[in-house]
Amino acid sequence: MKLLEDKISAEGKALSETVLKVDSFINHLVDPVLMQEIGKTFAAYYKYKGVTKVFTIESSGIAPAVYTAAALGVPMVILKKQTSKILSGNVYQTNITSFTKGTSYELTLNSQYICPEDRILIIDDFLANGEAATGASTLVKKGGAEIVGIGILIEKVFQRGRKRLEDQGYEVRSLARVSKLAKGIIQFTEADL
Amino acid sequence: MKLLEDKISAEGKALSETVLKVDSFINHLVDPVLMQEIGKTFAAYYKYKGVTKVFTIESSGIAPAVYTAAALGVPMVILKKQTSKILSGNVYQTNITSFTKGTSYELTLNSQYICPEDRILIIDDFLANGEAATGASTLVKKGGAEIVGIGILIEKVFQRGRKRLEDQGYEVRSLARVSKLAKGIIQFTEADL
Repeated sequence: MKLLEDKISAEGKALSETVLKVDSFINHLVDPVLMQEIGKTFAAYYKYKGVTKVFTIESSGIAPAVYTAAALGVPMVILKKQTSKILSGNVYQTNITSFTKGTSYELTLNSQYICPEDRILIIDDFLANGEAATGASTLVKKGGAEIVGIGILIEKVFQRGRKRLEDQGYEVRSLARVSKLAKGIIQFTEADL
Repeated sequence: MKLLEDKISAEGKALSETVLKVDSFINHLVDPVLMQEIGKTFAAYYKYKGVTKVFTIESSGIAPAVYTAAALGVPMVILKKQTSKILSGNVYQTNITSFTKGTSYELTLNSQYICPEDRILIIDDFLANGEAATGASTLVKKGGAEIVGIGILIEKVFQRGRKRLEDQGYEVRSLARVSKLAKGIIQFTEADL
């Protein structure tokens, strides 16, 4: 997606060989026009795939996911980050450890909001090692539903996320694929959409 | 806003005299059509007030805030919940204690994303005791900007949030004003918009 790549080139900040900051248009200050275009781009690709719900992980995925859900005419579900296990039969949980941030949380889904007939599109802002997307897919499986695809805004190609998700049989589609980061340098390889 | 009141009547769950769950259309499963209508409703009221940015607090305010920002043609800023103080001159922080949840966090804003010329509209999902909105207004003041208004989806009229914000000189506009909660009972008083 050229619009997203252009924004990343203009405003993204490569802080190291692995860290890309996009605080000025995705993660902290959010450009609603860009979010709407992202939603339209994902919807154009997924519209004939029978998606019934868009899942995302709080909180940076919410803005692009809600526009994708709107463009597809389906609800969005925000998977919650809980700090502790909920001992109740009403929720599905899976533990996520973020190596980047050194944090751990229980990704949580109320079992009411998924059914075996659901066809789920997972949308997230970043794909690095694939922990969050793998966690989301675990919750979808616990709910007995199917994953139609995983849509990513920015993929770090040099990390193992895509391989890990593809090895589980999931299709990954990224709007921007960053092949190299170094202080002040951001290089792209061809995007999926 | 009749559409929101109808949704709350149909799907909201009054768990006690103070707790109203709206997980099935705002906080966990999100209805994008409702979010878009909320954005349009806020924008219709605030469109001639010179709003330059919409501020919200992660994460339940993001979906309605991004549609409000889109309808007003301005960016959205997500105020972040950090667990610890950041010792850097680049951020404004203020401590928020939620009595409802028994939690405490540092509401955080990168100083780059506010300037003294800004006219800020704060959007949040709930108004109870006004802790989050007061924290957001503290960060706006630290940035030297002006608060145009505070837009709330669901106000709990029987708690002190509105009075607290009005006493600070802010105008509060709520789409749904809940005057009474009890197990299985949700009563409204006239909404602002």
